[in-house]
Amino acid sequence: MTLAARRVILASVISCSLSLGTTVAQAADALPSWNEGQTKQSIVDFVARVTKQGSPEFVPVAERIATFDNDGTLWAEQPLYFQINFGLDRVKDLAPAHPEWKDKEPFKSVLAGDLKTALAGGAHSLIEILAAGSTNMTTEEFDRVALTWITTAKHPKTGRLYSEMVYQPMLELLAYLRANGFKTYIVSGGGSDFMRAFAERVYGIPPEQVIGSTGKLQLEMREGKPVLVRLPALDFFDDKEGKPIAIQKHIGRRPIAAFGNSDGDLQMLQWTGAGAGTRFCLFVRHTDAEREWAYDVSPLGRLEKGLEEARAKGWTVVDMKKDWKLIYPFEKK
Amino acid sequence: MTLAARRVILASVISCSLSLGTTVAQAADALPSWNEGQTKQSIVDFVARVTKQGSPEFVPVAERIATFDNDGTLWAEQPLYFQINFGLDRVKDLAPAHPEWKDKEPFKSVLAGDLKTALAGGAHSLIEILAAGSTNMTTEEFDRVALTWITTAKHPKTGRLYSEMVYQPMLELLAYLRANGFKTYIVSGGGSDFMRAFAERVYGIPPEQVIGSTGKLQLEMREGKPVLVRLPALDFFDDKEGKPIAIQKHIGRRPIAAFGNSDGDLQMLQWTGAGAGTRFCLFVRHTDAEREWAYDVSPLGRLEKGLEEARAKGWTVVDMKKDWKLIYPFEKK
Repeated sequence: MTLAARRVILASVISCSLSLGTTVAQAADALPSWNEGQTKQSIVDFVARVTKQGSPEFVPVAERIATFDNDGTLWAEQPLYFQINFGLDRVKDLAPAHPEWKDKEPFKSVLAGDLKTALAGGAHSLIEILAAGSTNMTTEEFDRVALTWITTAKHPKTGRLYSEMVYQPMLELLAYLRANGFKTYIVSGGGSDFMRAFAERVYGIPPEQVIGSTGKLQLEMREGKPVLVRLPALDFFDDKEGKPIAIQKHIGRRPIAAFGNSDGDLQMLQWTGAGAGTRFCLFVRHTDAEREWAYDVSPLGRLEKGLEEARAKGWTVVDMKKDWKLIYPFEKK
Repeated sequence: MTLAARRVILASVISCSLSLGTTVAQAADALPSWNEGQTKQSIVDFVARVTKQGSPEFVPVAERIATFDNDGTLWAEQPLYFQINFGLDRVKDLAPAHPEWKDKEPFKSVLAGDLKTALAGGAHSLIEILAAGSTNMTTEEFDRVALTWITTAKHPKTGRLYSEMVYQPMLELLAYLRANGFKTYIVSGGGSDFMRAFAERVYGIPPEQVIGSTGKLQLEMREGKPVLVRLPALDFFDDKEGKPIAIQKHIGRRPIAAFGNSDGDLQMLQWTGAGAGTRFCLFVRHTDAEREWAYDVSPLGRLEKGLEEARAKGWTVVDMKKDWKLIYPFEKK
């Protein structure tokens, strides 16, 4: 046996031992931040059913695809989607180079701290704000900017990094599914490259499993090297009907489990639930005004049709206040 | 320890043993259909350099992304891209339901067996032919149609299934890279869903790692269930500049190795090669008129600028006749 082969074996044994350790730990109680009850039980039952060899409900590993919305499902989304805060901060950072913004909405109001006026123009104003600091730059420049923001900017209410405001029970759920052979994906209205700046480190979800909204890209040669320039033009909006479409384009097979928190996720859950065999659909419902926020309807979105359909179809609905022992990892003692 | 935990351990041990077996087998000679020489050596050297722990050239597993063109790189593409033959066969199959095609080009000439006239309209005619049998149907209907074709239709020259006309040396290369921690992707001008009908079975590449051209999709409810309908409108053409763009959208990180066979792959190789650290770019050159085909330029495409750049940058160029012991798996004795 060659030295290279020996090295390969050693690496495999080490990696196997590590994965064994993880798996056994998971088997004890993989979801310690979930209170015992129907919600937690529905998750554990589903996973047991689709992973039981020889059972008619068994699903091969390759088909164990689980898709997660991000805003309000994996991390908080109040009082504004975190990516909007990123956009607002970018406008402030770039203002010195754009003296014309002092007299031009929505920038004028952003810089004056008057958010209500800044966003009065609706989606159009919002897109202008987001595009200002995220486009007309290369993908590599954007990656640096997004990474800097996500590792330094603080949430106005908690004073924590935005990436600390992920839901501990959902982190456990992601890890639990992966330990059971699932491939976990984000399918979100947020920007793909924005989410990729933290998804691997925070959620354990690699860039290639992050599906989001995208802007148009243009390949250019600069100093003899190709760069991809982010253009100020929407390419794909990954919400509502867009979610099943994005799943087909990127994954090419139907998930067997899907997780969301608003009517914008309903089509993804319908698409998932309509497949043959055992399927799992779950909505996170924001019911905890003290530890997080309580809302079905907010300026960001609504969970109404989704709740109706969840009731009709027996989907799982998480009651955050009742079902979750912890909301954020930083609450751990 | 619970019974469930014991089962998990057992499964992990079995899966570890299997993966050890594979890895050691690969170490012997992972590329038996490649003749010894500079080409084969360049591949083996690259893999050794990026997988050597502690070396400055070491690349973590998560970043070992390799992208492959399909037509002419993983399987043959003459005398017509195989997907065009699929399109032509679909027109013939559907003709009884379309009496109007008898008087309407390009269908009239397809049905008369006059391919030259049928394709005289260039890209426009081609798209019409491809769309006729692949759109205005659900994704599930298309999957069935594509699967039936790929498992039954025969190539006019070899009389073999099209899926048998994959390149044995490239199959070995795909497996070799995966055994060394690479994630292998297809990035091709072919249709995503067409390629997904065989990519997993034939290449070991799962649907979510198949990136191709796509048509627009529309979500509809039919009998209370959501379906995705394939519209006769191009969404994305995954060729030339489209390839780095598709890589960014789908993978979100730059490959460290890229493989193509024509100038349509040049931008993908440039994008790959321009990254920091050790990179590998390879063109397959069709030089074997006897066992396959010999051409740099054909009605389908050309390898000209690519060859120039390969020479200038020291990329690997496969001379099929000289470098490959076997072309197709069915040549094995």
